[in-house]
Amino acid sequence: MSELDGFFENKMNEECGVFGVFNHENAAELTYYGLHALQHRGQEGAGIITSDGVTLHQHKGEGLVRNVFSQQDMERIKGIHAIGHVRYSTAGGGGIMNVQPFLFRSQSGPLGLCHNGNIVNAHQLKGYLEKEGSIFQTTSDTEILAHLIKRQKAPTLFDALKTSLNYIDGAFAFLLLKQNKLFVALDKYGLRPLSLGRIGTDGYVVASETCAFDAIGAEFIRDIEPGEVLKIDLKTGITSSTYAVQEERAMCSMEYVYFARPDSDIEGINVHQARKNCGRVLAIEAPANVDIVVGVPDSGLSAAIGYAEEAGLPFEIGMVKNKYVGRTFIEPSQELREQGVKMKLSAVRSIVKDKSVLLIDDSIVRGTTSRKLVDMLRHAGAKEVHFRISSPKIKAPCFYGVDFSTYDELIGATHSTEEIRQVIGADTLAFLSLEGMVKGIGRESKLGKNCGQCTACFTGEYPTSMYEDITAANVEVK
Amino acid sequence: MSELDGFFENKMNEECGVFGVFNHENAAELTYYGLHALQHRGQEGAGIITSDGVTLHQHKGEGLVRNVFSQQDMERIKGIHAIGHVRYSTAGGGGIMNVQPFLFRSQSGPLGLCHNGNIVNAHQLKGYLEKEGSIFQTTSDTEILAHLIKRQKAPTLFDALKTSLNYIDGAFAFLLLKQNKLFVALDKYGLRPLSLGRIGTDGYVVASETCAFDAIGAEFIRDIEPGEVLKIDLKTGITSSTYAVQEERAMCSMEYVYFARPDSDIEGINVHQARKNCGRVLAIEAPANVDIVVGVPDSGLSAAIGYAEEAGLPFEIGMVKNKYVGRTFIEPSQELREQGVKMKLSAVRSIVKDKSVLLIDDSIVRGTTSRKLVDMLRHAGAKEVHFRISSPKIKAPCFYGVDFSTYDELIGATHSTEEIRQVIGADTLAFLSLEGMVKGIGRESKLGKNCGQCTACFTGEYPTSMYEDITAANVEVK
Amino acid sequence: MSELDGFFENKMNEECGVFGVFNHENAAELTYYGLHALQHRGQEGAGIITSDGVTLHQHKGEGLVRNVFSQQDMERIKGIHAIGHVRYSTAGGGGIMNVQPFLFRSQSGPLGLCHNGNIVNAHQLKGYLEKEGSIFQTTSDTEILAHLIKRQKAPTLFDALKTSLNYIDGAFAFLLLKQNKLFVALDKYGLRPLSLGRIGTDGYVVASETCAFDAIGAEFIRDIEPGEVLKIDLKTGITSSTYAVQEERAMCSMEYVYFARPDSDIEGINVHQARKNCGRVLAIEAPANVDIVVGVPDSGLSAAIGYAEEAGLPFEIGMVKNKYVGRTFIEPSQELREQGVKMKLSAVRSIVKDKSVLLIDDSIVRGTTSRKLVDMLRHAGAKEVHFRISSPKIKAPCFYGVDFSTYDELIGATHSTEEIRQVIGADTLAFLSLEGMVKGIGRESKLGKNCGQCTACFTGEYPTSMYEDITAANVEVK
Amino acid sequence: MSELDGFFENKMNEECGVFGVFNHENAAELTYYGLHALQHRGQEGAGIITSDGVTLHQHKGEGLVRNVFSQQDMERIKGIHAIGHVRYSTAGGGGIMNVQPFLFRSQSGPLGLCHNGNIVNAHQLKGYLEKEGSIFQTTSDTEILAHLIKRQKAPTLFDALKTSLNYIDGAFAFLLLKQNKLFVALDKYGLRPLSLGRIGTDGYVVASETCAFDAIGAEFIRDIEPGEVLKIDLKTGITSSTYAVQEERAMCSMEYVYFARPDSDIEGINVHQARKNCGRVLAIEAPANVDIVVGVPDSGLSAAIGYAEEAGLPFEIGMVKNKYVGRTFIEPSQELREQGVKMKLSAVRSIVKDKSVLLIDDSIVRGTTSRKLVDMLRHAGAKEVHFRISSPKIKAPCFYGVDFSTYDELIGATHSTEEIRQVIGADTLAFLSLEGMVKGIGRESKLGKNCGQCTACFTGEYPTSMYEDITAANVEVK
Repeated sequence: MSELDGFFENKMNEECGVFGVFNHENAAELTYYGLHALQHRGQEGAGIITSDGVTLHQHKGEGLVRNVFSQQDMERIKGIHAIGHVRYSTAGGGGIMNVQPFLFRSQSGPLGLCHNGNIVNAHQLKGYLEKEGSIFQTTSDTEILAHLIKRQKAPTLFDALKTSLNYIDGAFAFLLLKQNKLFVALDKYGLRPLSLGRIGTDGYVVASETCAFDAIGAEFIRDIEPGEVLKIDLKTGITSSTYAVQEERAMCSMEYVYFARPDSDIEGINVHQARKNCGRVLAIEAPANVDIVVGVPDSGLSAAIGYAEEAGLPFEIGMVKNKYVGRTFIEPSQELREQGVKMKLSAVRSIVKDKSVLLIDDSIVRGTTSRKLVDMLRHAGAKEVHFRISSPKIKAPCFYGVDFSTYDELIGATHSTEEIRQVIGADTLAFLSLEGMVKGIGRESKLGKNCGQCTACFTGEYPTSMYEDITAANVEVK
Repeated sequence: MSELDGFFENKMNEECGVFGVFNHENAAELTYYGLHALQHRGQEGAGIITSDGVTLHQHKGEGLVRNVFSQQDMERIKGIHAIGHVRYSTAGGGGIMNVQPFLFRSQSGPLGLCHNGNIVNAHQLKGYLEKEGSIFQTTSDTEILAHLIKRQKAPTLFDALKTSLNYIDGAFAFLLLKQNKLFVALDKYGLRPLSLGRIGTDGYVVASETCAFDAIGAEFIRDIEPGEVLKIDLKTGITSSTYAVQEERAMCSMEYVYFARPDSDIEGINVHQARKNCGRVLAIEAPANVDIVVGVPDSGLSAAIGYAEEAGLPFEIGMVKNKYVGRTFIEPSQELREQGVKMKLSAVRSIVKDKSVLLIDDSIVRGTTSRKLVDMLRHAGAKEVHFRISSPKIKAPCFYGVDFSTYDELIGATHSTEEIRQVIGADTLAFLSLEGMVKGIGRESKLGKNCGQCTACFTGEYPTSMYEDITAANVEVK
Repeated sequence: MSELDGFFENKMNEECGVFGVFNHENAAELTYYGLHALQHRGQEGAGIITSDGVTLHQHKGEGLVRNVFSQQDMERIKGIHAIGHVRYSTAGGGGIMNVQPFLFRSQSGPLGLCHNGNIVNAHQLKGYLEKEGSIFQTTSDTEILAHLIKRQKAPTLFDALKTSLNYIDGAFAFLLLKQNKLFVALDKYGLRPLSLGRIGTDGYVVASETCAFDAIGAEFIRDIEPGEVLKIDLKTGITSSTYAVQEERAMCSMEYVYFARPDSDIEGINVHQARKNCGRVLAIEAPANVDIVVGVPDSGLSAAIGYAEEAGLPFEIGMVKNKYVGRTFIEPSQELREQGVKMKLSAVRSIVKDKSVLLIDDSIVRGTTSRKLVDMLRHAGAKEVHFRISSPKIKAPCFYGVDFSTYDELIGATHSTEEIRQVIGADTLAFLSLEGMVKGIGRESKLGKNCGQCTACFTGEYPTSMYEDITAANVEVK
Repeated sequence: MSELDGFFENKMNEECGVFGVFNHENAAELTYYGLHALQHRGQEGAGIITSDGVTLHQHKGEGLVRNVFSQQDMERIKGIHAIGHVRYSTAGGGGIMNVQPFLFRSQSGPLGLCHNGNIVNAHQLKGYLEKEGSIFQTTSDTEILAHLIKRQKAPTLFDALKTSLNYIDGAFAFLLLKQNKLFVALDKYGLRPLSLGRIGTDGYVVASETCAFDAIGAEFIRDIEPGEVLKIDLKTGITSSTYAVQEERAMCSMEYVYFARPDSDIEGINVHQARKNCGRVLAIEAPANVDIVVGVPDSGLSAAIGYAEEAGLPFEIGMVKNKYVGRTFIEPSQELREQGVKMKLSAVRSIVKDKSVLLIDDSIVRGTTSRKLVDMLRHAGAKEVHFRISSPKIKAPCFYGVDFSTYDELIGATHSTEEIRQVIGADTLAFLSLEGMVKGIGRESKLGKNCGQCTACFTGEYPTSMYEDITAANVEVK
C-alpha cells in the first residue's frame, strides 16, 4: 500500500529485517548484500556484528546499508560468522543508540543480538528486570532478551535462551551470535517470517525473507517453525529444539499484502503470486465497468495485474513513481504543493485522460494518501476513478511490529466503506473480503492444516495474550 | 533496455535533460523539481542558473539533483527566470567544470546557456573559433554556441542566435537565459524532444520531456518545432521564428524505446503506450510457445505487458530490481559475484521455476547484460528462456547524443541474430522489425505527413551531414 | 610535550573532558561551547545529554565538537540542565558505542552519566557485577558506576551514589544528570581537575578545566575537593558531602606539564605560569651556552619563555606548526617523507642556521619524536642542538587515564639520560629534576599543607592501591 | 593582525598562494603538501593541474587542501609537472567556478594558469577583450592573461606571454603550465613574493613563500625578480627573461606584517625576525610602564617577544586561541555572546588580573576587534591596557590583492590615534612609525639599493598607475 510507503508525508510502518551467516569466510560481505536485499524492511539504520572465531566486531550507523558501510569498515569487521539488522526507526528514537545488532560484553565472552518484531509484555518485563538490577541503555525491546538470559541459571546458553523466551510474549525473530555459535529463535505463533538457507560448502544463512538468499546465491532449506530455536555450531552443525509448544500459526498477513518483496516466498508462497491472486479474487468480488486498470506503484502493481487478467481489462501504467526520490530532498512548500508540484508520483495524463480508471492499492490507513491519488487522476483527466483495495479494511492496531499506532489513525476503524469513499472522493470503492484475502494468499492449499495467519488488524482478534498497556488504544506502540 | 541502464557494469548511454522557467516567482524551485523529474536523463551532475531580473545566479554540482542543491543554495539563487540541466558525464570528463548550465560574463551582461544533444561538426567549429581567438574552458560542445554568438554583428541577440545556429550541425535543444529573456532553440531535424508549457498566470516552462510539466503542475502547450527558435520576454511574450528551413523530421527513436520516462508524451505519443504497442507488434511478429511473459525492469515492462495482452499470456514479475541501489555501493568481488551475489536484479525463483519464460528487454547493445539475464533465469529454474527485443537490432553508432561509441561495441553490427542467440544463451531470440517499431510507436497515424524519426542506429542512415572525424568508427564520440 | 601530541605518528595519550550546566535556559549551547574549550582533552568523540526538566535528550558522535553537532541537533536537545564529554578514543575501541555521556533508561526515570579518569579495579568490579546479573554494552569503565548504583538499597540516589563510589578505586571525575538534579563526584585523591562555577542568575557549571568557564562567561567559584560529592537541585541548590575520607592530595602532575590548556588554573595555579616557572628552574638546573632558546610548539613554548627570561637568552620562534593539519590528511609516503616532506612542523632555517640552539620540550616518551626534532634543526643548519625537558624523566606507566601503556614504550624506563641523548642525537640533554618540577609548579606555596601531587609516572610510586591486572606492565590499560 | 584573521566576524583580507613543480615524479603530491604549507594564504578553495607530459589533469574544490583532495583524486591526477593554488574567496563569488588554476583547452594543446595578486586595469582589459570577441566564464581577473596570450601573433608562447604581460598593470605572480613547460612571471614592481627552488635531481619548484620549500624538502635557489619571466622546459632548463624594465621594488609590507608565515623568508628576510625587530623598535618608540607584555595570537606574538626583550619586561601568554575553531561552527547567538561566550580567543584571568598589560597586535583595520580584545582583558581583571600596534596606521585601500575595500572601512583613514584609542577603550595607544617599520623589517641593510617596499596602505602613495574605477573609494575591489 503506497500509504505505507510514507507516500506523501505520513509517518508509517515499522518493520525490520534480520540476516545471519554462519561459517563462511566472507560472512561480513554476505551480510552486507543480504541486508541490502532486505533494505525495504528498514531504511533508518543498519548494523553488522561479526565473529572471527575469537573476537566480535561491530559497525552500525544511521541510513541505508550502502551509506553506513565503507570499504574500510567492511575490512575492519571481517569474520566467519555474522548477524545484521536493518531498522525502521521510531520517531524521536534514540538515534544511533537504537540501531541493532547490540553487542553485550562480559568477562565470559561477548554476545551479539538482533531482533525483528515487537514484544507485547515488554513493559512488564522491563519493570521486573529493573527490580532485579538491570539497566537499559536503549529504548528498544531487544535488550530484554539479553537481560533475561543473564538471569538464568541454565547450564548452557542454549538452555538459558529457551527458558528466557518463555517469558516473552509477542512477535519475534531473534538472532544471537557468540564467537563460534549462532542461535536463531522464532515466536511460537510464527508471526514474523524467518528462513534458513545454505551457502558455500558448510555455511548457513538465516534471513527475514528469501529474497536475501537469491541476492547472495544461497540455497533455501526451509522456514523456521513457530516456537523453534536453533543452535548452529562448527562441531555439531544445526541443533533444532523448541522453547514452547507451537501455537496455531499466525503469520502476519501484511507481510504478503505490503511488507515483503514480491520475489520472496513466505512459507512456500510467492509474495507476487499471492498479491496477484488477491487481485484476481478482487476482480470477481468487486467488478467494475471501466476502461483500464492501474496499480499504485509499487505495491499495488501485482494485484492490478491479477485484476486486469481476471477481468480481461487492459493493465496500464497510469501512475509513475520517480525513482530518484531520497532522504535529502527539499520538500515543496505548501504554495508549490497547491500549484501541483509533486516529487514522488505522477499520473500519466495521456493514459488516463477521458478514461474510466480502476485504481488498485494494497490498503488504506488514514485515507489521506488515497485522496491525493484520486485527485491526481482526476486532475490528469480521468473521467471516473474506481478505487479497489486488495486487502480488507484495517480496523485495529497492530502490536506485533507494524506501526498502526492507534484506532484514531485508522479510517477503517471509524468510517464505513461508503464514508471512506466520500472522504477520498472516488466514484466507487471496494475492499477485498477477509475470506477473499485468505483465499487469494492461498495458505490452506499450500500448508494444509495449521495454515493460520494473523488477521488482527482486519478483525481486532489478536493471537497473543493482551497486556494492559498495549490495549489502551491511545498508547503508541514502539 | 536494461543494457542501457548500465545494468551490470558497462559504461553506457549519454543523455541530458534541460528545463527552463520564465516569469514565475518560484523559478528556482520549479526548476529544481523539474530537473528532478528529468533525473533519469542524467545522474552525474546538475545545475541551475536563475535571473532575478538584474543579476544571474548559479549553483551546480556533481551527483543527483537532491544532493547538489541544499535549502541554503536554493535561497541564494532565488529568481523569476531559470534554466537548468541534468547531465550524464562522459568518462574521465572534466568533472564539475563540465556541469551545465554555463555562465558567460560580459560587461554587456551575463548569459546562461545549456544544451541537450551533440554537435556533429564541433571539431570543425572549435578549430575555426580558436583561430578567431576563442578559448575553451570545458570539454563540452555547448560553449561553441556562446562563442559563435559573440562573433556575430547582428543587431539583437535573437538575430545573433539564429545566425549562429546555422553554423551548427547535429542534434541540439538549447536554452539561453539573459536577465529578462529566455531563448529556446531546437535543431532543424527535431532530433531531441523539447516541449513548451504554461505555469501560473503569465509564466512559461520548457522541458526535454512533458513528465516535468506534470511534476510541477504546468500545462502542456505544444512541442517545439524542428528549426524553431523562441524568444520569451516580459513585454512581448513569446516570439517564434526559425533559424533554418525545417528538414524532414527525425525524432530519435531511442527516446521512445529507452530514454524517456513512460509518463512523457513525445510529439503527442505517450511513451508507455508506444512501448506497449511495440510489444503487441512483437507478439505478432515473433510469437512463442511459453508459459509466462516477463519484462526486464524497468524498461522492458511496458513492452512485456503489451506482448502478454496480445498473446493472451500471463504477464508475471519474474525479475525484481533492488530499488536501493546507488552510487556509493561496495561492489561484490569477483569471487562473490561467482558465488551468485547480485546487487541490482534478482530472478524470482518461485515464478520462473520449471516454466518456459519469454523475457522481453528493450534492446541489446553488447550482449553481456543479456547473457547475465538469461543465466539468472536459468539458475532460478526456468525450463526455457525465449528472448524478445522490443526494438530492431542496433547496428550503427549514434552521433546525436547517445553513447554507442563504436561499431566494435555493438554486437548487432557484427553478429547475426542466431549468433547473438548463441552468445547470450537463449533458446530463441527475435528482434522487432524496423517496420514493426515504426508501426508500434505510431507516429504516422499521429503526426500525418512529415512524421519521420531517426533510425540511424538501426540502419546506419544518418539524417545530418557526416563529418570526417565522427565517421571514423573507432573515434569515441563525446 | 609534543611527543604527546601524537606529533609524528605515535599513538599516545588519553584524556577526557567533562562539562555540566545546571539551571540555565541555554544549557545545551553552553555545553557545546564549554566542550569546545575542552576539545584539547579529546578529539575522537563528543556527546551531550540535556534535561528539559522532564525528559533527557542526547546527541553524540565521533570527531570534533564542531563536526558532531549541527544546528538541528542543538535544537532537538534544548534543555535547562546538561552534561557533556569529549573523548580520546582507545585504539580499536567500540567507536560510537563508547562515546559518552551514556544514557541509562529505567521506569523510574533516565540517568545520564559521564566520566574522566580511569578505574583501577574495573576488572574486579565488572567481574563482581556480571555475577550479579549486569550486562555491559561498552568497553568503557564508566558503565560500572551505573550498575553499582542500581544495586544499592539506599533511600536516595545521592546516598546510593556515595555508597557506590566506595567500591571504586582510581582516578575519576563523574557527572550524573537526572531530570532535575546534577551530581558531581571526584575521587578521594583528587587525581583529576574539576571545578565549580556560576552562570547567569541561579545557574551552575562544572568543568574539567577553568578555561571552559572563561569561554562561556561563567565565574569560577572553587575547585571540587578530593572525595567530595555534590548534589545540585532546584530547591536546595548545592549540597556538598563526601563519599570517603580525603586522602593525601595527588593531582596529576602531567595536567600541569602537558594536558591542560595554558589559560586554565588548576587548584589555583595557572598552567602557563607553572610551565614558565618550570622553565625558569630548568635554566638554573641545566644551563647551556647557546645563542637562542626555541620551544617545541605548542606545549614547550611556556617553558621556553621562562628558560629564556631566566637565562637572559633570546626566545625565538625556531619551529612553526602548520595549523591546518587535521584528520583527513593524506599522509606522505615513506619515499616523500625521506625527501623531507613534512606536514605538521617545520624548523625555521633563517632563525636556527649556524646557531647553537637550546630546544625545550615538555617530555620524552619514546624518543622517536625528539629524534626527529633534533634532526629537523640540524637539517635547517643549527650548529648545536641542546635539548632540555621541562619535566622529569617518565619511568613508569600511568593507570589513571594517561595512555603510557607499558614500561617498554617508555625510553626513560630503560635508558639513562646519556643513552637517551645518543638516541635522539642531541649535543646535550637534561631533564628537570622532580624537586625542580614540584618547585616550579609551586603547589606548596599556593596550597600550604596537603599540597601533594601525583608523580607516579616519574617515580613509580602510585597513590592508589594496586591491582593485579594493572601492575602487569605489559597489559594495556584502557 | 588578528583583525585580519577575521577574528570575530569581519570579512577581511584576500590573499592567495601559488605553487608549481617541474620535473618530479611526485609532482601532484608535492603540490598537495606545498599548498598545505601555503594554506594560511587562502582557505576557501584549492586546485591542482598536473601534466603527465602529454595530458593535463585537474582537480579543485572549495575548502581546505586536506578536504578538497582525496587519495583517489591524487591518483587520478598523477603527473610530472604541476601548478596549484589556494584561494581566499570573495564574498558572493562564483563558488567553485572561480577556484584556480584554470584549464584552457585548445586544439593546439591545453594550458593551465593560476595567479596571486590583483590586476588594476582589469576592467579596461576585459572591455577591450570582449570587443575582440572574448568570453569570460569567471569573475576572476586571471582569465585575462589567457585571452591576451591567445591574441598575440608571437612565434612562441614565451614571446606571447611577455608581450601580453605588458598590457597588465598591478600585482601578479603567474604560473602557466603546458604539457612540458612551466612559465613563471612576476609583476615589474615585485609586489608579491615568489621564490624558486630545487627538488630532487633535476626538478624545480616555485612558491609564494619559502615555507613551502621547507615543507617538501626543497632547496631555496633565489627569489624571482620584479619583471622577470621564466620558461622552464626539459631540454633547456630555466630560461630567464624580462617582460618590462624593472621598476623601483615595491614588495608588499603587509606580507611581513601579517600575511606570510613566520618561517618564510621574503627577499632574504625572515618574517618572524622582521616582526620581532618591529616589536623592538616599537619598544623604543612607544615605551610603557607596565607589568607584562602580551601578544595577540598568532600574528602579534613575534612583535610582543621583541618588545618584551627590548623593554626587559616579562612576555606572557595572556591570551589563548582555541585551535579547534573551524568553518562548520555554530556561532553563539547575540544573547550568549553578551553573556561572554567566546569561541576563538580567551584572556587568561590569572595572568592578567590586577596587572598593567601591554597588548601588541599587528594592525588595526576597523577597530571592532581591537575593542573586543581590550574589553576581554578588562573583564579578565587587567588593571590597565596599553595597546601597541607593530605597524603604522592603515589609511588607504589596497588595490594589489589585500581586501581593504574602501576608505570608509579603515578607522585609520578617518580617526586620529587619540580618537581610535577612545573607540577601542585602551589606556594608551601607539602605532609603529613608518620609518620604524622600514627599519624593523630591515630591507635596506639586506638588499642595499633598490630595497623599496610598498607602503601604499599606510601612505596612500601607490607604486602603479591608477585607474578610474579603482580610485573611486567606494568601489569594492575584488
